[in-house]
Amino acid sequence: MSSKPTLTLYHHPHSRSAGVRVMLEELGVDHRIELVDLQAGEQRRPEFLALNPLGKLPTLVDGDTVVTEQVAVYLHLADRFPEAGLAPPIGDPARGTYLRWMVYYASCFEPAVVDRSQKHEPAEPMMSPYRDFDSMLAALEAQLAKGPWVLGERFSAADVLWGTALRWTTQFGLVPKTPLIEAYIARTTARPAFQRAAEKDAELLATA
Amino acid sequence: MSSKPTLTLYHHPHSRSAGVRVMLEELGVDHRIELVDLQAGEQRRPEFLALNPLGKLPTLVDGDTVVTEQVAVYLHLADRFPEAGLAPPIGDPARGTYLRWMVYYASCFEPAVVDRSQKHEPAEPMMSPYRDFDSMLAALEAQLAKGPWVLGERFSAADVLWGTALRWTTQFGLVPKTPLIEAYIARTTARPAFQRAAEKDAELLATA
Repeated sequence: MSSKPTLTLYHHPHSRSAGVRVMLEELGVDHRIELVDLQAGEQRRPEFLALNPLGKLPTLVDGDTVVTEQVAVYLHLADRFPEAGLAPPIGDPARGTYLRWMVYYASCFEPAVVDRSQKHEPAEPMMSPYRDFDSMLAALEAQLAKGPWVLGERFSAADVLWGTALRWTTQFGLVPKTPLIEAYIARTTARPAFQRAAEKDAELLATA
Repeated sequence: MSSKPTLTLYHHPHSRSAGVRVMLEELGVDHRIELVDLQAGEQRRPEFLALNPLGKLPTLVDGDTVVTEQVAVYLHLADRFPEAGLAPPIGDPARGTYLRWMVYYASCFEPAVVDRSQKHEPAEPMMSPYRDFDSMLAALEAQLAKGPWVLGERFSAADVLWGTALRWTTQFGLVPKTPLIEAYIARTTARPAFQRAAEKDAELLATA
C-alpha cells in the first residue's frame, strides 16, 4: 500500500460484524471501530442508513468506498492486504475453492439457518438455494473434514468466517455440535486474533 | 494466461447458470457446456453430486478446481480473465462497491425472493439478512438509478448477474416491473453476449 488506509468498521460484538473484527486483528492493520448500539436502535439513524440502507452490520468504510454484506467485507479486506496471506491470490488454483466456500456462507448456510430458526421448510429443489438443511451441512462438513482448515493446510479468511459462523449458530442451537464442528471451532477461536478481538469486544461493551 | 484454460460449465438454460453462460460469452473464452437435464433428474446423478453435493447449477470446473455458487462463479471468472475488464481490479476504488453488489445478490436478494415465493415473512430484524423485501429492493433500485450500470458508467460482471436475476424474477412476478428495472433489463439483455447466449441456449434445448 502506498498510503495508510483509513478503515472504519461499524460494529457490534453481537452481530454479523463479530468475525470482521477478528479479520482486522488477523490482518494487523490500523482501523477505527464505530460501535453501533443495536439495543438503542442506532442502526436506524439516518447517518447510518446513508451508508447502509438495510441498517445492517458489518458496514466497512474504506476511504471513499462503502462495503456492506459480510462476505463482501471479508473478500475485500483479504485481497486489500495480500501480505497477510488470508486469500489465495487470483490465478492460484485454490482461489476458486476459496470463493466457493466464502459465498456458500451467504447463499446456502445463512438461508438454511434462518429458515431453521423460523421453522420454515426449504423451498422446492429448483428454488431452494441450499437444497435442505442436512445436505447443506453435510457438504460443509465434508469440506471441513479435509482440514485442518477450509482450504486444507492453508489458513484463510474462510476460516475466520466459518469459525465465527459455526460458533454462534451452535451456541444458539441452530447447528448441531458434532465433534468435527466443535474441534474446528476450538481450533479457529484459539488463534490469537480471535482472543484479541474477544478482549477488545468485552472492553467495548463494558465502556459503551 | 500461459496456457489455454479448460473450462466446463454444467448448465441448464432454466437455472441459476443462465447468466454464467452470458458471462462466458462476454469474456469470449473457450469453454465447454455440459447440459444437466433437470427434468430428467441428472442433477441427482452420483457423478454430478461428486462435483456439487447440493446438485445445483451453475457448477464450473476450471482445470482441477470446482467452483459452485452462482456469485462465486461470476467472481472467479471475472478475475480469471482480467483482459475483459468485467471486474474492477484489486486496489481499484470501485472494487469494494463491486463486491458489495455481487454478494448482495446471494445474501439479500435471493433470500428475499425465495421468502416471497414461499409467502414467508422475513425473520426479525437482527436475524433477517435483508431486513424486508421493500427495503431490499429500494436499496438495489437506488444503486441502479445511478446507472446506466451497477458501477455507474462502467459495465461489469455485476450487470450480467443483475440483468439475468431481474429478468427471471420479474418474469415470475416475484419482483415488480418498475420503469427503472424494466429499462435496466432491456439495456443489459440487448448486449450481444446476452443475444448469443440466448441463441445457443435455444439450440441446446432443441437438440437435447
